Amino acid sequence: MKQGDIYNLIQLLSKLPGLGPRSGRRAALHLIKNQSRLLQPLYESLIAVEKNVKKCTICGNLDTNALCSICTSHKRQEDLLCVVSDVEDLWAMERSGGYQGYYHVLGGVLSAMDGVGPDKLSIEGLIKRLKEGIVKEVIIALSTTLEGQTTAHYLSDMMKDTGVKVTRIAHGVPSGGELDYLDEGTIVAALNARSLL
Amino acid sequence: MKQGDIYNLIQLLSKLPGLGPRSGRRAALHLIKNQSRLLQPLYESLIAVEKNVKKCTICGNLDTNALCSICTSHKRQEDLLCVVSDVEDLWAMERSGGYQGYYHVLGGVLSAMDGVGPDKLSIEGLIKRLKEGIVKEVIIALSTTLEGQTTAHYLSDMMKDTGVKVTRIAHGVPSGGELDYLDEGTIVAALNARSLL
Repeated sequence: MKQGDIYNLIQLLSKLPGLGPRSGRRAALHLIKNQSRLLQPLYESLIAVEKNVKKCTICGNLDTNALCSICTSHKRQEDLLCVVSDVEDLWAMERSGGYQGYYHVLGGVLSAMDGVGPDKLSIEGLIKRLKEGIVKEVIIALSTTLEGQTTAHYLSDMMKDTGVKVTRIAHGVPSGGELDYLDEGTIVAALNARSLL
Repeated sequence: MKQGDIYNLIQLLSKLPGLGPRSGRRAALHLIKNQSRLLQPLYESLIAVEKNVKKCTICGNLDTNALCSICTSHKRQEDLLCVVSDVEDLWAMERSGGYQGYYHVLGGVLSAMDGVGPDKLSIEGLIKRLKEGIVKEVIIALSTTLEGQTTAHYLSDMMKDTGVKVTRIAHGVPSGGELDYLDEGTIVAALNARSLL
């Protein structure tokens, strides 16, 4: 129905990733049916996020403080810096529980197609952090797409003069991955990166 | 990250139908990255919906007026009433463009499992509307689930004394449906409801 308010809400919900026109309608009705349990808390939460959430001025993570909880933590390994493309990747690394250093969020990857050049990414800030001399190793954790790998090589070049060790996370078979279902590129990468058992 | 505001937003978004924890995170980040284009309009829209959207006191449809745009329209066939389970079904009927009568939203279907008895549905209101003597035919458009069909039979019994003609929408092969992919129940229903070509 093209009634103003409901229609408007459906249009906005449909723009969320993972939702389309049909699921946008379902979500809108679900919100209307659960006003006190969901609709009100949702707009209060959105207003709070708009008011409080900022980009960390050091690493680019999102937090309610100008410096994020990771950058201000003293329990982390200070000579390790992990470069990720976006905040979602930082969160994924944190969820894995396997990393205890600090982060640097680039804000994307180089992409000629999308007109993303080095000036659009937080590369200058990264080099500046390395020049402070605390970081000993930079771990590049970018997607194994063409753009991700191009960015990794570009970063590696840019960091050459800093004397910092530059590594990247391994490419190979994912946990629980069946060889039969993997693409050839992954199998070749896993073969090339084989290690002693 | 379990930082208050963002975490809270993710939790709420994850409760929307069609979204889970992972897509809730993506949606939250998408909103944060598009504050002026999406986050602000979304909470403004939610507040407007909360303030303005009401259930139509006649049919149960949602609208910004106490009487919905369908019930107040004079261009519809006044002797036809279509009974649907929920507002989403009313919208689906309207999108089809194939119906020009009025509606009655039950607010669900009978379900012993979920504890929905006749008193939880808007059946009394339906009978009252029929007793006004304007409606000549009630078209039952409920899902072809066990609960939907049980409800259809229950309604049919309840409406017996009103003298109104009670029909239901046809069960059969959906448009573009390939027989090979259909369940047996649908094929049997389509066979039994066959018509002259």
